[in-house]
Amino acid sequence: MARFFMAGTNLPGSPTAILYGRDAEHIRVLRIRPGEEVTICDTKGTDYKCRLVRADREEAELEVLEVTPCRGEPNVAVTALCGLPKGDRVDYIIQKSVEAGVHDIVFFQSARSIARPDDPYRKLERWNRISEEAAKQSGRGIIPQVTWAADYGEVLNTAVHTELPLFLYETGEREGLNTVLEANKTCKSAAVLTGPEGGFEPFEADLARLAGMHICSMGERIFRCETAPVVAIAAVMYATGNLS
Amino acid sequence: MARFFMAGTNLPGSPTAILYGRDAEHIRVLRIRPGEEVTICDTKGTDYKCRLVRADREEAELEVLEVTPCRGEPNVAVTALCGLPKGDRVDYIIQKSVEAGVHDIVFFQSARSIARPDDPYRKLERWNRISEEAAKQSGRGIIPQVTWAADYGEVLNTAVHTELPLFLYETGEREGLNTVLEANKTCKSAAVLTGPEGGFEPFEADLARLAGMHICSMGERIFRCETAPVVAIAAVMYATGNLS
Repeated sequence: MARFFMAGTNLPGSPTAILYGRDAEHIRVLRIRPGEEVTICDTKGTDYKCRLVRADREEAELEVLEVTPCRGEPNVAVTALCGLPKGDRVDYIIQKSVEAGVHDIVFFQSARSIARPDDPYRKLERWNRISEEAAKQSGRGIIPQVTWAADYGEVLNTAVHTELPLFLYETGEREGLNTVLEANKTCKSAAVLTGPEGGFEPFEADLARLAGMHICSMGERIFRCETAPVVAIAAVMYATGNLS
Repeated sequence: MARFFMAGTNLPGSPTAILYGRDAEHIRVLRIRPGEEVTICDTKGTDYKCRLVRADREEAELEVLEVTPCRGEPNVAVTALCGLPKGDRVDYIIQKSVEAGVHDIVFFQSARSIARPDDPYRKLERWNRISEEAAKQSGRGIIPQVTWAADYGEVLNTAVHTELPLFLYETGEREGLNTVLEANKTCKSAAVLTGPEGGFEPFEADLARLAGMHICSMGERIFRCETAPVVAIAAVMYATGNLS
């Protein structure tokens, strides 16, 4: 069934929903006919099963049939904090993390980031559009927000305000990700902090340790910077029972 | 430390290793100097720590310092069986599955595969080169083999000859992947069978069930065909203690 997101919602409590603009156009493009059903998600975790009443170029009117919690949402909120990589690796991290069930994504200028955009905030609109597309396609109940952190202090602060802040590191003294997750299977929030192409500078790991993060190993294999967050999110989802 | 694979090996038992051709060239390109150390992997799970003695255009001579089991290898052999997707999704599945720790990858013409190459066997050389590159970069001790299965019977036969054959399906009666893996944490081999863009035909799932595969759900989120095998492999690695 086709899924639509309606952010500024006219749904709650109303037996009728109206889709405007791009969404109304999309109803037409998909050739959905009156009487057929679609799901509208309020982007806050609630799904509205609707039947199309009428659609024209500007708006589509739908009858709300059923209101249910969106089943696609995991019961753990994982924040991915990623040292900015180059080019389309960013797109990849967003798309795959959203599929894997991430709650929100924060990029930042890591010490070894090769990419150094003049104005990263200008990229946010495009990055959030990638998130929205991936959220629609994978049946998510929220659109994970993509933001930019001005400095590493902000990144660490975000991480340690989750129940389980994980710093994924390739070297030195580390806990096994398995061990840490097995001891925290009931956590309701977590953060996974990963580096750019060249990894982290030692001082970044030291600061994370001082801030109270778990410095974690994912085994002896070396993950590309765009693969590490996805594998780490999948591991958190598995450990917390969200891959069933 | 730079890693090289040496398939037709002159290493075992010998105090000296010789790299030829492309690998010797690579030593020069990386500007590795006599006295510096590199790792040579025999692609069968053994690493040889070596010191460069001399290198010219045709060959490089190295002194073997230490012989150790390659630490990058998981203790579970996972076979990824993938309904052929379109274009660069194949490349993506190979690269990310190898990073995640897959043992071998089998593509096949699934009922809903849109991609229908005239001669898939001609693609194998390129696909295996992608695997080799990813194996080098991620510190694997083997080069996961990429093969083509002529029909679905062969695919099912490969799957059920592993200890834990998993069929990942988006609909119908399924076991949770979490539940199945928790009950099989000590398995030494597994298979993950995933579909192309349009998913599986019901008969493909029915046959897999009859063959004795676990029909598994990965939750209510819908994974793209190139993401599903990677997430499933990560889950198997996590469950079997191979993400530490």
